[in-house]
Amino acid sequence: MNKAALIEQIKTKRSVLCVGLDTDLEKIPPHLLLEEDPVFSFNKAIIDATAAYAVAYKPNIAFYESMGVKGWQSLEKTIQYLDDRYPEIFTIADAKRGDIGNTSKMYAKAFFENMNFDSVTVAPYMGEDSVTPFLEFPNKWVIVLGLTSNRGAFDFQFIENAEGEALFESVVKKAQDWGSSEQLMFVLGATKTEHLARLRAAAPDHFFLVPGVGAQGGSLEEVLKQATNKEIGVLVNSTRGIIYQSDQEDFAIAAAQAASELQQEMARLLF
Amino acid sequence: MNKAALIEQIKTKRSVLCVGLDTDLEKIPPHLLLEEDPVFSFNKAIIDATAAYAVAYKPNIAFYESMGVKGWQSLEKTIQYLDDRYPEIFTIADAKRGDIGNTSKMYAKAFFENMNFDSVTVAPYMGEDSVTPFLEFPNKWVIVLGLTSNRGAFDFQFIENAEGEALFESVVKKAQDWGSSEQLMFVLGATKTEHLARLRAAAPDHFFLVPGVGAQGGSLEEVLKQATNKEIGVLVNSTRGIIYQSDQEDFAIAAAQAASELQQEMARLLF
Repeated sequence: MNKAALIEQIKTKRSVLCVGLDTDLEKIPPHLLLEEDPVFSFNKAIIDATAAYAVAYKPNIAFYESMGVKGWQSLEKTIQYLDDRYPEIFTIADAKRGDIGNTSKMYAKAFFENMNFDSVTVAPYMGEDSVTPFLEFPNKWVIVLGLTSNRGAFDFQFIENAEGEALFESVVKKAQDWGSSEQLMFVLGATKTEHLARLRAAAPDHFFLVPGVGAQGGSLEEVLKQATNKEIGVLVNSTRGIIYQSDQEDFAIAAAQAASELQQEMARLLF
Repeated sequence: MNKAALIEQIKTKRSVLCVGLDTDLEKIPPHLLLEEDPVFSFNKAIIDATAAYAVAYKPNIAFYESMGVKGWQSLEKTIQYLDDRYPEIFTIADAKRGDIGNTSKMYAKAFFENMNFDSVTVAPYMGEDSVTPFLEFPNKWVIVLGLTSNRGAFDFQFIENAEGEALFESVVKKAQDWGSSEQLMFVLGATKTEHLARLRAAAPDHFFLVPGVGAQGGSLEEVLKQATNKEIGVLVNSTRGIIYQSDQEDFAIAAAQAASELQQEMARLLF
């Protein structure tokens, strides 16, 4: 998917909502466990219930990988379903991969060729040749970790060089040499809103994927105030606040309700 | 596996060889493609041929992931085979994972519970809570990326803070607060031997996993001179130099020959 199509969808739906699909057998409604593929059944119901309000879905690959071959099958079915049924919606493989060149190429193949994800999250520690193999796929995106939403972000991401530039700023600046704003986004945690403006200054044109609103404590209003650009330029992820609103038969209705409320707040703040 | 058992094996075999299993359908002998699971058949033959010379095996997870569900099955069969047949050999899931706490826990479950790997490689960018969930498993190891063997290592790993400490040094120092040398190792690329002594000084007791000898250009002699400690403390990985010596019927014999030569050189330099 290209940037224009993503922006078009944002304007049509008046939403920047990305729904995280961290699907966990211990958290989904117990009645689904009787189904042949409980994970896919859950995802399908959540997607159908929230697609009117969301512009992106983000399966968290760890949750599928932790279920072995069965999890991998559920993931393949989920991306296939999104692709067939909602081709206009942006899809993110939240995998945080990154390795030497020939290995990153294999990861790119896994997520872009075998599965038709629009984008994959990539860790920057290993530098350029760990990222560029993903950029060789037309109309696919790399989402590089900039400033993450977790506590451990303070361990290394804020280390400053002699010029007072923090590591996360160096990453965001350097990565712009590798790919344009048509193929590269950055992850920026909503729990660190005081730094969002600094990051927007470092990357004026790129989309930011912002996790951490809701359960992790980030404020939607602050994020939209600090991180948007002239093309809006943000995707705001919510996971637990949407997909686990109910563990009863009404789980999809409850998810739709939560997604709708978030979309309305986004519309109010953005448009 | 604990550290004493690993050292015991190193002394018995007079070897620090880790064989990388970057198994690629385009590179394995074509006659294997007729088998039901060519990847597992290749791995099994390579393992049986080289187990006398190797103390560790390191499947590169990207190569399996790029083959989807089938690849995941081949990986599960490979670790199961190693576990059943060669329980004394150390196994490394070269996955370079790392995410917020509850997600890292899922990756740990994937590699330590569902599959019985002894260790997993982890990227440090997201800090402590991305690493510690892996450390909660007894007798399992985390191998944190310190200084990698690729060109992109120069993009961020050498950024110095105000005190002149490079990021890779900060990582190696900080990570020692999270886990002891009984559960934590570091990845240190053989292509950067001029920095190995600096790293050994920063982490005197920890094992280093050293990739980059052979095809990537690192010198075994330099690595063993600079990076060993009083308990030896290194695992040296070789992949292409062993597993792809021949693409004919004799591929396993050729791999055994290459592994044997490398082991002899290790024995000569170390003992």
